[in-house]
Amino acid sequence: MTGEPRVLRDELLCEGRRVKLYRRVVSAGDAEVEKDYVAFGESVVVVPVLEGGALVFVRQWRPAINRWIVELPAGRVELGEGVLEAAGRELEEETGFKAGALREVGSFYVSPGYSDELIHVVVAERLVAAKAHPEPGEVLSVVVMRPEEYLSRVGRESLDLKTVAAIHLYLGGSR
Amino acid sequence: MTGEPRVLRDELLCEGRRVKLYRRVVSAGDAEVEKDYVAFGESVVVVPVLEGGALVFVRQWRPAINRWIVELPAGRVELGEGVLEAAGRELEEETGFKAGALREVGSFYVSPGYSDELIHVVVAERLVAAKAHPEPGEVLSVVVMRPEEYLSRVGRESLDLKTVAAIHLYLGGSR
Repeated sequence: MTGEPRVLRDELLCEGRRVKLYRRVVSAGDAEVEKDYVAFGESVVVVPVLEGGALVFVRQWRPAINRWIVELPAGRVELGEGVLEAAGRELEEETGFKAGALREVGSFYVSPGYSDELIHVVVAERLVAAKAHPEPGEVLSVVVMRPEEYLSRVGRESLDLKTVAAIHLYLGGSR
Repeated sequence: MTGEPRVLRDELLCEGRRVKLYRRVVSAGDAEVEKDYVAFGESVVVVPVLEGGALVFVRQWRPAINRWIVELPAGRVELGEGVLEAAGRELEEETGFKAGALREVGSFYVSPGYSDELIHVVVAERLVAAKAHPEPGEVLSVVVMRPEEYLSRVGRESLDLKTVAAIHLYLGGSR
């Protein structure tokens, strides 16, 4: 191999409302290789912990998979926003809870085969109930469940990948 | 709300080599809502278990994130292929190991906010070393590590989301 792989250039293939599709041209070994990927950027998933240890989830109808799914609150880090700021905003929009304390516990690449998304896991504590105000078109309701109960469904139904990993990270750190 | 949300139609925005971007028009509540999503389909992530309990990973340079990352072997379920068949193929292509036993232990939606990808977690055992033959442009090498060692890095560096969830699922089921 002749040196480390490196990005030569990006070509915009097309632009959706929230997602852009690029073709990335890469020098790998002796060859130029083209790889398509989705530019999404950074995101947050929030682990909102109630007194007593139950977590706040959202049950949400997701157009991309055409079904209902229970997830932790999550969303994109918007331009100019910090990670904790985004976490607090998404938590309040989706669940109506304001957090008295937010801390990042880790981050993951969501799907490095075709997406640049990096998701930050943020634990939210000292929750105070306010009022949810989902974005237009978001169909969701709040579900309160112990983390072990959510994890007990793994293997029996198709769960949300980030939610499972975030709960494990939270439980691992709080033990 | 007037009934369950439902998909009215899909409009193809553009087509990359392996990824298609669609605009999905949905009836949600009283409104029509448009949501862009990536059509990727089904995929597999393989947990290859060696005698003694260490796992086989691949260290891979990923164009989408422009960096090296250690992941479990993974890839798409191709048209006409079964889940276990895809798992065996990806395992052999990426690591050179053939599996004597393959079993699915669960599945996850990878990023239901903007992707339809459903990933199946397959445990591979009774491994026999053969010869790796990565796809053109794949830059990777094999890494053998105990699962606890991989998980110990969580929170200190940005790891691969599916790999972390698959290891937890494997460890949870094998205890």
